[in-house]
Amino acid sequence: MKPWKLLDTEYLVNAPWLKVAKEKCELPNGKVIDDFYTLWQPDWVLILARTKEGKWIMTEQYRHGTGKIALEFPAGIIDKNETAEQAALRELQEECAYGFPQSLTYLGAYPVNPDRHRGKFHVVFIDGVVRAGKTSFDESEDIESLEMSDEELRKKMLDGTFSHPLQMAGYFKWVLSQK
Amino acid sequence: MKPWKLLDTEYLVNAPWLKVAKEKCELPNGKVIDDFYTLWQPDWVLILARTKEGKWIMTEQYRHGTGKIALEFPAGIIDKNETAEQAALRELQEECAYGFPQSLTYLGAYPVNPDRHRGKFHVVFIDGVVRAGKTSFDESEDIESLEMSDEELRKKMLDGTFSHPLQMAGYFKWVLSQK
Repeated sequence: MKPWKLLDTEYLVNAPWLKVAKEKCELPNGKVIDDFYTLWQPDWVLILARTKEGKWIMTEQYRHGTGKIALEFPAGIIDKNETAEQAALRELQEECAYGFPQSLTYLGAYPVNPDRHRGKFHVVFIDGVVRAGKTSFDESEDIESLEMSDEELRKKMLDGTFSHPLQMAGYFKWVLSQK
Repeated sequence: MKPWKLLDTEYLVNAPWLKVAKEKCELPNGKVIDDFYTLWQPDWVLILARTKEGKWIMTEQYRHGTGKIALEFPAGIIDKNETAEQAALRELQEECAYGFPQSLTYLGAYPVNPDRHRGKFHVVFIDGVVRAGKTSFDESEDIESLEMSDEELRKKMLDGTFSHPLQMAGYFKWVLSQK
């Protein structure tokens, strides 16, 4: 089993938040695909943050992809010259106003979608934080924060109230890492 | 917290496998975003299939998004006039040559990515299958099948050998549903 050979790339969208490319590829069997579309979005970090009392810090905000208000973990795009860990601490402060962690653990990175997507996200576990300072939203953000027990979170993952699959995968990585 | 108002849509890519739209949106605070990009890919089904002996049926194939050979569950696009369950049984036969299940359970659907993606995937658990018939690949497919114990699968999810986050979320939904 071998990788495909890239023969040509044409960018159809080349914006800061999204790149879409039409790639001409040669398969190992000689077949040529003229239009395999690939996607790229900036890398982001998933923030699994727990308070000193052992509650998860969660957010509620409108998501224009689904058109719905969604229960999620905090998350954010990693700025230039910033590590995933630094972005996680910054976003946790900006979106939810929590800080002063007792520990921070990097749990890994995932491709957003291996099929045709070139971006990835990182998973960071931040434990033992406390409420601190103020939130600071972008102009297009409106985010509510809440605290939730692990038991309640799993209930919401089972009944579908929590339905962000990329975030669920990151949380499951944390579950596996705890054993 | 309210949804955004859609003012205008312009399609930048309108292919059978991918649609990319530039949407002009008005936010609840009055701010107008001229270029919020949204994506659409056809709905697909994740197939969590177990043999009579309790082994997961897994695949290995090249993924051009990541440019790597990937260990994954079988999965496939749902054809027109087909349910997720029907697609799961068809793809399990075509990709891996297993059939004759003892039971089939629909576990739910997820948005591929709530941020700017309009497509979704379904999760189907097919238990007690046996090897049957032959595989039948598309011209661009080259797929190896293998069987794996649940313990080994979790090890590979922890060490990153298995790294498809959407599939990991579907598997975790199954884990939660077993309790």
